[in-house]
Amino acid sequence: MSTGHRTSESGHPRHRLDPVIHSPVRLSIVACLAAAERAEFGFVRDIVEVSDSVLSKQVSNLEEAGYVKVKKGYVGKYPRTWLSLTVAGRRAFDTHLVALAAVVGAMHTPDVALPADNASLVEGP
Amino acid sequence: MSTGHRTSESGHPRHRLDPVIHSPVRLSIVACLAAAERAEFGFVRDIVEVSDSVLSKQVSNLEEAGYVKVKKGYVGKYPRTWLSLTVAGRRAFDTHLVALAAVVGAMHTPDVALPADNASLVEGP
Repeated sequence: MSTGHRTSESGHPRHRLDPVIHSPVRLSIVACLAAAERAEFGFVRDIVEVSDSVLSKQVSNLEEAGYVKVKKGYVGKYPRTWLSLTVAGRRAFDTHLVALAAVVGAMHTPDVALPADNASLVEGP
Repeated sequence: MSTGHRTSESGHPRHRLDPVIHSPVRLSIVACLAAAERAEFGFVRDIVEVSDSVLSKQVSNLEEAGYVKVKKGYVGKYPRTWLSLTVAGRRAFDTHLVALAAVVGAMHTPDVALPADNASLVEGP
């Protein structure tokens, strides 16, 4: 999975979608974490509706990408695992959302030059 | 990959993301077709920036899902292949966009009941 094109500003906006973030479960985790400074593992698991093992695995992927930070601690005598987005993770999420909006709206404000026989290539509704 | 949960209205909105549409290339194709009544194969290929074979394969997937219709014809003496979204395809795209917006904004307007020690589970920025 190439990620080298992610910083490109040219071409179709799908090139700027982040494959690490795009997966539905990871997108849900990142969106959940984006709304808070940090959140407890079990809280994220319950919001996103995944098992402990799925969340662990996806958090590991996000950690490897440098997008999520994991911190273990205690609340009283109970162990807690805290998850938070890194600065890079917040930036990547923002970039992904901009790209996503552009993909979805790409044809609504096209800046492409249609060829001479454009009427035969694309027809408006 | 189970798709049986896609019509569910309850639970986390990621369950309502359509795996057929979510892939970056297919999302780009569907978004492109959503803006027109129909579009020529080569036009979509150039907009989405994929090869003929990638577009063929992904269009086949979308056709199998009942989301895209393929029609062959001529402009003058030149053969043309037209692509268009079916009614089901437009509906699926709309549903997907609503789900996507909900996933991304899910935590901004949470309707979840936080437990008593909520302050220890999630912290706002």
